[in-house]
Amino acid sequence: MRAAGAKDAEATMIIDCHGHYTTAPKELEAYRQRQIAGLKDPSQSASEAPKITDDQIRESLEKAQLKFQRERGTDVTIFSPRAMGMGHHIGNANTSLHWSRVCNDLICRVCALYPENFVGVCQLPQSPGVPPANCIAELKRCVEELGFVGCNLNPDPSGGHWSDPPLTDRSWYPLYETMVDLDVPAMIHVSGSCNPNFHATGAHYLNGDTTAFMQFLTSDIFTDFPTLKFIIPHGGGAVPYHWGRYRGIAQDLKRPPLGELLLRNVFFDTCVYHQAGIDLLVKVIPIDNILFASEMVGAVKSIDPQTGHYFDDTMRYIEAVPGLTEKDKLKIYQGNARNVYSRLSARLSGRLSASKAESAPH
Amino acid sequence: MRAAGAKDAEATMIIDCHGHYTTAPKELEAYRQRQIAGLKDPSQSASEAPKITDDQIRESLEKAQLKFQRERGTDVTIFSPRAMGMGHHIGNANTSLHWSRVCNDLICRVCALYPENFVGVCQLPQSPGVPPANCIAELKRCVEELGFVGCNLNPDPSGGHWSDPPLTDRSWYPLYETMVDLDVPAMIHVSGSCNPNFHATGAHYLNGDTTAFMQFLTSDIFTDFPTLKFIIPHGGGAVPYHWGRYRGIAQDLKRPPLGELLLRNVFFDTCVYHQAGIDLLVKVIPIDNILFASEMVGAVKSIDPQTGHYFDDTMRYIEAVPGLTEKDKLKIYQGNARNVYSRLSARLSGRLSASKAESAPH
Repeated sequence: MRAAGAKDAEATMIIDCHGHYTTAPKELEAYRQRQIAGLKDPSQSASEAPKITDDQIRESLEKAQLKFQRERGTDVTIFSPRAMGMGHHIGNANTSLHWSRVCNDLICRVCALYPENFVGVCQLPQSPGVPPANCIAELKRCVEELGFVGCNLNPDPSGGHWSDPPLTDRSWYPLYETMVDLDVPAMIHVSGSCNPNFHATGAHYLNGDTTAFMQFLTSDIFTDFPTLKFIIPHGGGAVPYHWGRYRGIAQDLKRPPLGELLLRNVFFDTCVYHQAGIDLLVKVIPIDNILFASEMVGAVKSIDPQTGHYFDDTMRYIEAVPGLTEKDKLKIYQGNARNVYSRLSARLSGRLSASKAESAPH
Repeated sequence: MRAAGAKDAEATMIIDCHGHYTTAPKELEAYRQRQIAGLKDPSQSASEAPKITDDQIRESLEKAQLKFQRERGTDVTIFSPRAMGMGHHIGNANTSLHWSRVCNDLICRVCALYPENFVGVCQLPQSPGVPPANCIAELKRCVEELGFVGCNLNPDPSGGHWSDPPLTDRSWYPLYETMVDLDVPAMIHVSGSCNPNFHATGAHYLNGDTTAFMQFLTSDIFTDFPTLKFIIPHGGGAVPYHWGRYRGIAQDLKRPPLGELLLRNVFFDTCVYHQAGIDLLVKVIPIDNILFASEMVGAVKSIDPQTGHYFDDTMRYIEAVPGLTEKDKLKIYQGNARNVYSRLSARLSGRLSASKAESAPH
């Protein structure tokens, strides 16, 4: 009902910028297991891509992501391979390349089957100790050939050992140059953890977000790449809750204010699963830097007994933020996503013209 | 003025549960540098404890921690060696033992010089790959001989490589048994980071907090040790901001509700340096689980240009939380600290009798 009310005007398209294909047909995981087995025993290796029918894809989405889109009144999901499944720490660069291509191709098929509902974002074939430049070809393929609008970038391809250089290291620069050339952003997103200290969705994900933000804060990366854009998911990890700490640390380090230093380039999604968290996010972070997202079907799958609604139905929290104007919501629900994912409007042109979207106030 | 108002009643003693001796005389650091040099060249090693006079100690505190206590109207700080300085990743178990004894002895002198203002908490002689049981003797010495009321426990003695087992591993149990026997809690607190991915105060500290909480959530540690108590500092890292996520993950994992699972044993401090963050903390976490703290003089040393007050003057934020009752504040400012640090009231008996404190409503 809330959704129906909110959508009286066509302009209120609701874009969820953070969805993973967590419900992919089991043939995908079987392929991956063969691939992993092949690392030890080449006779086991998966030489062919998994055979998955269109009907299997439809079935995997109809009862999950599409059902929730309909129920919750969201329109489009920026959709990428399962984050936990990226597993960049497994095997070598070749392993990651084959696996990434298979996963990205599957996302492409999802988007082709449901062009109204999904727009693609790719997994990169990262691998510990391998220069990120190795990902350029797959990024180009996904954007130029498959029509994807961005990528997920893993700040820790080691899966919880953090053995590679920070995101601000020069070794990342060739990949960033390509992102700038293609005009696509990256969502910072770790994969699973193979370090027993870190539960994946409960610690490693949020630590990755917090860590990346602080790497940016202490670097000149956005002087070097003024148009490079990153989305920090899961509401920015610990960052908005500690916004005063970050403002203070930046000041103590004689860095520029955070708005000037980072907020032309760094954006936060709304994957925060309770009202108080979303209230804080919207209060502390400028509206222009917040992108609607739910990560459904993802880290938390159940219903909150305190509210009777799904934990990850984040639109409900946004609707309930005190004092949020329609103009603010328009930015959070779509305007900011269109700005950050600059190729998105062209992909959505069948639904709502880009010029109309651009004329939306922001 | 706020403090004067708040302190009309003697019962409103304000206990800051999180202060480090960040301003120790330079002789301490010189000793440490000799110790580190001695790791490579034994002829350089520091055989004697640093010579520091009482006047040097007084001077180091009068213009810093004591000045801020007076200005802000706080009374007692639970005081421990500089967290960044613990450096458990440097050298070996012997290095850490000598360094910990020197640091803890200095805290003991601070507490003896200013028994009204400081109560000691110790650094543990942890070392990567060394069983935590190795810390038992120093913990006992600090509690039984030096009169300390707790310890700081580093969940990652490797300094950002997270190469040791999680806090829920059985190797920690002998230390926990001693904590239970002595009836002292531990504050979970990492030290400096030697991993270039992690800025210490901006990422590693908060990640350590978040990680520890999730380790507890997935374990039965508090079934095994029903009276073991931990304080997670820095407002609990990312945890309160993502409280819905944690409630949901616990539910999905078929764990008991967080209150039952963790909140008899896990407490959060108030080192969150802006109003919106403290508002969220107090809204989301039960009042009984929140301990007043500022970590001054610590991670953020400057004045917030938005408020004109020090970022780490956290009492101001607590005073400004809408709807917080005097009873709530009494718990946050002292009642909860007395409950968690069960040896604290005896140490404070010269100021406010334990029986009076216990009769405070909570």
